[in-house]
Amino acid sequence: MNHKGLLVVISGFSGTGKGTLVKEIMKKYDNYSLSVSMTTRSPRTGEVDGVDYHFVTNDEFEKLIKEDGFIEHAGYCDHYYGTPKKFVENELNNGRDVILEIEMQGALQVKEKYPETLLLFVTPPSITELERRLRGRGTETEEVIMKRLSRAKEEAVYMDKYDYLIINDKLDECVTEMNDIINAARRVPVRNIEFIGDIKNQLDRY
Amino acid sequence: MNHKGLLVVISGFSGTGKGTLVKEIMKKYDNYSLSVSMTTRSPRTGEVDGVDYHFVTNDEFEKLIKEDGFIEHAGYCDHYYGTPKKFVENELNNGRDVILEIEMQGALQVKEKYPETLLLFVTPPSITELERRLRGRGTETEEVIMKRLSRAKEEAVYMDKYDYLIINDKLDECVTEMNDIINAARRVPVRNIEFIGDIKNQLDRY
Repeated sequence: MNHKGLLVVISGFSGTGKGTLVKEIMKKYDNYSLSVSMTTRSPRTGEVDGVDYHFVTNDEFEKLIKEDGFIEHAGYCDHYYGTPKKFVENELNNGRDVILEIEMQGALQVKEKYPETLLLFVTPPSITELERRLRGRGTETEEVIMKRLSRAKEEAVYMDKYDYLIINDKLDECVTEMNDIINAARRVPVRNIEFIGDIKNQLDRY
Repeated sequence: MNHKGLLVVISGFSGTGKGTLVKEIMKKYDNYSLSVSMTTRSPRTGEVDGVDYHFVTNDEFEKLIKEDGFIEHAGYCDHYYGTPKKFVENELNNGRDVILEIEMQGALQVKEKYPETLLLFVTPPSITELERRLRGRGTETEEVIMKRLSRAKEEAVYMDKYDYLIINDKLDECVTEMNDIINAARRVPVRNIEFIGDIKNQLDRY
């Protein structure tokens, strides 16, 4: 019925384990492709071009903006970040589901442009648990933790705009549930416009 | 997080096997309760009061209307049909998921009154297949088959108003998929207003 893949955008509070979730779902199921963002900032130690980001120059990025080559892009701390359109569209046309891990403004931009996009919001079961996880890393100063929590406060405003909440309590169960949710979302009418059109056309003769 | 059950309304074209689907999902999972409609029409041979319908008098039905005792009700062929509110609310408050099998106008009434209601539309993979199934019963005259198909044409207009399409191809897979879809639907923000409110409240102090 729907031969194209699904565009899945994942956002959520910092410290909710989005990255791990994405890594695990890619490992467990083979229908997902991960979109790699493009940026003009320099690679940090250990970051690999084409894996962590596509690292490009300012000119290259701006050229791609002019060519309408991004699904979404934004400036942040004097650098550009964006999702290249070509990879996403190729994969979707090949029937693969594409995962983007981006923040909320970007996510809502994508949904506006492509209404069939699936928006998933990853959240811990409670803020107490989020704080516990942020502290548990043991690598962040109190100031950084407070900054992340105050950013979470701003981000929580957008939770209602997402299609589904992914409550990350136990990782394993969460990965399965996320995959089930994605499969359920394929059956929403807005993602089956062609199928519904076919049914209506076939009924026209009665 | 969400302690109440989910109200699940099932509609769909006549001949799509809604009844069998409902029966099978009730058998396979134990979290569902089936709502039995009330009617003023007389029982047909074999129909059991309290199982197929609650059979009541006109006066009893109209008294319940006045007491706001229905989730939805309608007149059809000189008889009343309706869904008694008390059973549904009791079950939901006990954390059980309630299934209503009703037609589209009723379904949309329910959704308007209870926006967290889940609307499922059962459809065969194609109209050719629907026609094949209607003929396959071998019990319907050509006239009745044509009447059902022309009714399906009217009903198809509402497909987009439903939350999910349930494509009934293979019964077994369809029952599992329906249950997965219902579980996924629990994670939609509109059904987690309390949880989202809690998260926002907890973040307020940062």
